[in-house]
Amino acid sequence: MGVLARYGHLIDSVTESTPQITLGEGSTPLIRSRHLESQLGVGELYFKLEGMNPTGSFKDRGMVVAVAKALEDGSTGVICASTGNTSASASAYASACGLESIVVVPKGNIAAGKLAQASMYGARVVAISGLFDDALDIVRSFAGPGPIKLVNSVNPDRIEGQKTASFEIVDELGDSPDDLFIPVGNAGNITAYWKGFLEYHAMGNATRLPRMMGFQAAGAAPLVLGHPVEEPETVASAIRIGRPASWENAIMARDHSGGLIDSVTDEQIMDAYSLLAGQEGIFGEPASAASVAGLAKYAAAHPEMQNRRVVCIITGNGLKDPDNATAQGLNVEEAPADLGAVERLLGMN
Amino acid sequence: MGVLARYGHLIDSVTESTPQITLGEGSTPLIRSRHLESQLGVGELYFKLEGMNPTGSFKDRGMVVAVAKALEDGSTGVICASTGNTSASASAYASACGLESIVVVPKGNIAAGKLAQASMYGARVVAISGLFDDALDIVRSFAGPGPIKLVNSVNPDRIEGQKTASFEIVDELGDSPDDLFIPVGNAGNITAYWKGFLEYHAMGNATRLPRMMGFQAAGAAPLVLGHPVEEPETVASAIRIGRPASWENAIMARDHSGGLIDSVTDEQIMDAYSLLAGQEGIFGEPASAASVAGLAKYAAAHPEMQNRRVVCIITGNGLKDPDNATAQGLNVEEAPADLGAVERLLGMN
Repeated sequence: MGVLARYGHLIDSVTESTPQITLGEGSTPLIRSRHLESQLGVGELYFKLEGMNPTGSFKDRGMVVAVAKALEDGSTGVICASTGNTSASASAYASACGLESIVVVPKGNIAAGKLAQASMYGARVVAISGLFDDALDIVRSFAGPGPIKLVNSVNPDRIEGQKTASFEIVDELGDSPDDLFIPVGNAGNITAYWKGFLEYHAMGNATRLPRMMGFQAAGAAPLVLGHPVEEPETVASAIRIGRPASWENAIMARDHSGGLIDSVTDEQIMDAYSLLAGQEGIFGEPASAASVAGLAKYAAAHPEMQNRRVVCIITGNGLKDPDNATAQGLNVEEAPADLGAVERLLGMN
Repeated sequence: MGVLARYGHLIDSVTESTPQITLGEGSTPLIRSRHLESQLGVGELYFKLEGMNPTGSFKDRGMVVAVAKALEDGSTGVICASTGNTSASASAYASACGLESIVVVPKGNIAAGKLAQASMYGARVVAISGLFDDALDIVRSFAGPGPIKLVNSVNPDRIEGQKTASFEIVDELGDSPDDLFIPVGNAGNITAYWKGFLEYHAMGNATRLPRMMGFQAAGAAPLVLGHPVEEPETVASAIRIGRPASWENAIMARDHSGGLIDSVTDEQIMDAYSLLAGQEGIFGEPASAASVAGLAKYAAAHPEMQNRRVVCIITGNGLKDPDNATAQGLNVEEAPADLGAVERLLGMN
């Protein structure tokens, strides 16, 4: 059951005439930690595996709503700026629905798998000599009515769809967690989660609200610094953003929830990236590991985390960015096609 | 809910003392075709998206059972031969459960993303100068009791877990489909699906049995040729196998169900691979497209498919093999970071 079928009745813009499209997005697993929970000193730790969405990232939750509305409105195509995940998602739903897709990306700054996705889904890919922020400035001119619909998270349908991840967490845990740890780039996702928790709380489905704990990469941390970053730099390309579109909403989520928005270094991100795969069997993209890196940093300084229930959002699939995995060192040993040779290599005889 | 929680009571080897591990495998979407159904001439066409499993392939369904049993039996590690997907799955579950993993792969014949996965999950990767079939011969010596458990599909726990995909299809459609189209490599998966349909039918959950329609790559089609292929060759690395381990079971599934096992060329596979992404928004790995290529071939010659309900198994995520996607041509256009320039490029002003 997709996002529209499961939660369409709780999404403002969805009406009876909204097409019920789906690629199988949403209803992602919430997995209890087997090792990091005790290693990091957390009472209960869960990972929300958003990389298991159809195009491998959380973007699909909002995109299914935005593209359904584009269909309903008679649009002929969709356009977006993207560091990669949005373009993959937009072009997949557009392809399924027979719409044109145009994606504007920063040249040379997009993970290989994401570019392959957009291309395979049939998008028209425009790589500009600029940053994500420049790309977003360009596509903003498509906001409003017209045959080509803007499907970045400045389109409220995107946030509406993404808020359903909070509903799922509460539905599964029976209440809000104490803390939600989440990577922050363009800040649409932290905005959407907070909206979801607020709405479920107001509906009586949760008795409390979580603290929103957002983490940016140190080289792309405008919300932490309090000013835009002109040349954002981080290994985590999905959050390499200097001027977040949802700036004020992210600050509001932080302050209203009693949470924080802090930064983690690329080294902390890559450590968490390896830990998550090696200790939990979960291969997220580097940006996803920002939430785990943030938890490691925060829990080390806050022993009271021993008594808290925490959810970490793993936003995207590690397969989208094989180059970063390969850069960690592949560690392949070679042997002849012979049992004795393999046993000797393994120290078994 | 993982495979053990949802269907553990229907899996022979699972007992009350089997650890209830999960990475969120199973319960994958069954998506109705929006374009290919009518283009190919099929009554009802559904895609089962097995690439949305936690490590990106159907292997996770059986691996969760095999690793749970390894834990229950006190094993300290797991070993497998692999064209890539099995190694990714085995090492992920081993990592989550604190077991060692050893994977033996054919050198130079494994998709980049799959090697990155095994390495990130902490596997010891041994690349042999030989084929998958040689690798399987080597690891077979680990079958039976011992601290290192063999987790290839010659381990019956793997087939037991994989049969749950049939249960899900019947649970969702309300009965078996008329035809199941599925890629065939080592032949464990077609064996498992058939076992699942037989069991559900015997339990009264389905009123009929589907025809099993298996497809091998033309350069690696031993079951079609009726003899092993010494040097299997195909772009679809996941099914580049010359001596399938489940040979007899696959033939039995074919004959018992009134189905067939046929071959498709690499060109047909790559055409289907592009069609699936460009027409349905589903990015599978090349081997997965063998089921769709097989359906295209079969339906073109059998107009009665207009009246049949068909499920195509999409076995693995296209992100595992970015090189094949990139080889299709990335089709990226470049522009300065300027609205006017982008609009001119797009023919909008």
